[in-house]
Amino acid sequence: MRVAVDAMGGDYAPREVVRGAVEAINKLGIEVILVGDQEIVGRELSGLDYDRGKLTVVHSSQVIGMNEHPALALRKKKDSSIVVATGLVKAGEAQAVVSCGNTGAQMAAGVFVLGTVAGVERPAIAANIPLRSGQNTILLDIGANVDCKPRQLVQFALMGSAYASVVNGSSQPSVGMLSNGEEESKGNQAVLEAHAMLKKETGINFIGNVEGRDIFVGKSEVVVCDGFVGNVVLKAVEGFMGLLMDTLKEALSPEVLRLLKSFDYNQVGGAPLLGVNGVSIVCHGSSKAQTVTNGVKAAVQCVENDMVGKLKRALGVD
Amino acid sequence: MRVAVDAMGGDYAPREVVRGAVEAINKLGIEVILVGDQEIVGRELSGLDYDRGKLTVVHSSQVIGMNEHPALALRKKKDSSIVVATGLVKAGEAQAVVSCGNTGAQMAAGVFVLGTVAGVERPAIAANIPLRSGQNTILLDIGANVDCKPRQLVQFALMGSAYASVVNGSSQPSVGMLSNGEEESKGNQAVLEAHAMLKKETGINFIGNVEGRDIFVGKSEVVVCDGFVGNVVLKAVEGFMGLLMDTLKEALSPEVLRLLKSFDYNQVGGAPLLGVNGVSIVCHGSSKAQTVTNGVKAAVQCVENDMVGKLKRALGVD
Repeated sequence: MRVAVDAMGGDYAPREVVRGAVEAINKLGIEVILVGDQEIVGRELSGLDYDRGKLTVVHSSQVIGMNEHPALALRKKKDSSIVVATGLVKAGEAQAVVSCGNTGAQMAAGVFVLGTVAGVERPAIAANIPLRSGQNTILLDIGANVDCKPRQLVQFALMGSAYASVVNGSSQPSVGMLSNGEEESKGNQAVLEAHAMLKKETGINFIGNVEGRDIFVGKSEVVVCDGFVGNVVLKAVEGFMGLLMDTLKEALSPEVLRLLKSFDYNQVGGAPLLGVNGVSIVCHGSSKAQTVTNGVKAAVQCVENDMVGKLKRALGVD
Repeated sequence: MRVAVDAMGGDYAPREVVRGAVEAINKLGIEVILVGDQEIVGRELSGLDYDRGKLTVVHSSQVIGMNEHPALALRKKKDSSIVVATGLVKAGEAQAVVSCGNTGAQMAAGVFVLGTVAGVERPAIAANIPLRSGQNTILLDIGANVDCKPRQLVQFALMGSAYASVVNGSSQPSVGMLSNGEEESKGNQAVLEAHAMLKKETGINFIGNVEGRDIFVGKSEVVVCDGFVGNVVLKAVEGFMGLLMDTLKEALSPEVLRLLKSFDYNQVGGAPLLGVNGVSIVCHGSSKAQTVTNGVKAAVQCVENDMVGKLKRALGVD
């Protein structure tokens, strides 16, 4: 098992990314290819302790910045770390790619380099939100797929179901449609239509609408929404968490603060890009080493459990 | 100042509603009209301590249940507590109405009994979210206005600005459009178009897009979204809060738990229905007495600061 890690992407790249990748080698026993400026990456590696046989550096001369326009950047920067890293998956040199860089560029690289699975109109990004021990919610799309058509939401549901079966080992994960009420009559036009389509879909355990609070209650294993809603919801919870931490930090013991931080979902790490022909794991831009290691772990889980194969079967294209 | 309170609406009605209303009389020195079954309300009042001259009970023989279809229920139940209470505002017997009952029915009663302000296509419900001391965010719409047209989002922005000036005393409250990124290019179609329209709008301090986290950071005094997104976001934070409380309660001191509960926004109470010809305050269905008192307080603030007049001027219809 070999995972390509984009060493140059992210707010704390390359230092934290390199450390996280090395930690993944040490902890998971897998091989890693670090993609980035050879000299810079080499400098970050010096002094770190790891099995030299399990790490390769592949040089790339360019980096796509966090705020660059994804499609334009992709066209101009053929030798950027995310494009080269994704190319390693395409070429079979690596089984997965992990990046904390520009998410739009990572999505675009997934689509253009790996290609989309037949029938998938738009790849989605799925967050794996840990709840209480042993429970989690898969929320998708948290990418930038705004104004989704009902059939795209249905594809998200099928892809999310496949991913939940990889993560939780469930054979028929429960899937809910995020809406402004539990009743079938609640929802915007796209949600209402997708709901009707999902009711007729066989091979998926659709339980109907779920509400915002259900994401954290674990009412369904998968929660489906468009990327606008998914982005706003996750960032709102992030902001709320920040407000709580600011207000409470003086009053809390270090132990409770640590417990509280385990709910900082952005730092958990490892949201797969679903619907492309390969495993591409998106980490938050502000990831530190631990999150990168978690991202590599998520990549390994997807590869070992044939996530792409399961997804194709769920979509009926295999 | 006289406020009509729907004594029969809400999960804990009439007991908690009656207690909250009595507390409002005692604390705020205002008059209250309790609307509901005279016998039941009378029974709840017995034994409570308050100035008899400041409380009237107006009988209504019907109640609209929490899960009834609003428009249908309104047509059938002309003598329901929410319709009668809203009618008291229309007749000038009360200056505001407060309810913890079926929100859709309260909205429908607002529209059909009070009428909408000229030019308002859809009334919106605005949550007043307290942040750190002395700071708050007005989030709207949190009602059920799904699939909003851009011009409706613009109206929400203008109405929210008027409400913020009432609550915060600001002359030009900052207004942000909730989106999946700060950049002007981010958003779904309705948000992109509303953004463009708001940029041209004079008489509003529009600061551009804000993100989910900014709701709790207080980047803008007002945050505008459609009712689908507003509902999902507030309920997601409610669910996240519940998860935190469940996980942390054993580890927290009673003092910190109390502090944490002050962020339970649903219990803060008092979201006005904006865009109808009168003051109608929506409280969460699970409100206890304290929330009802807060709802009456919000009503008094709206009346004393001429919220409806400010709103009309903001919309340019006065």
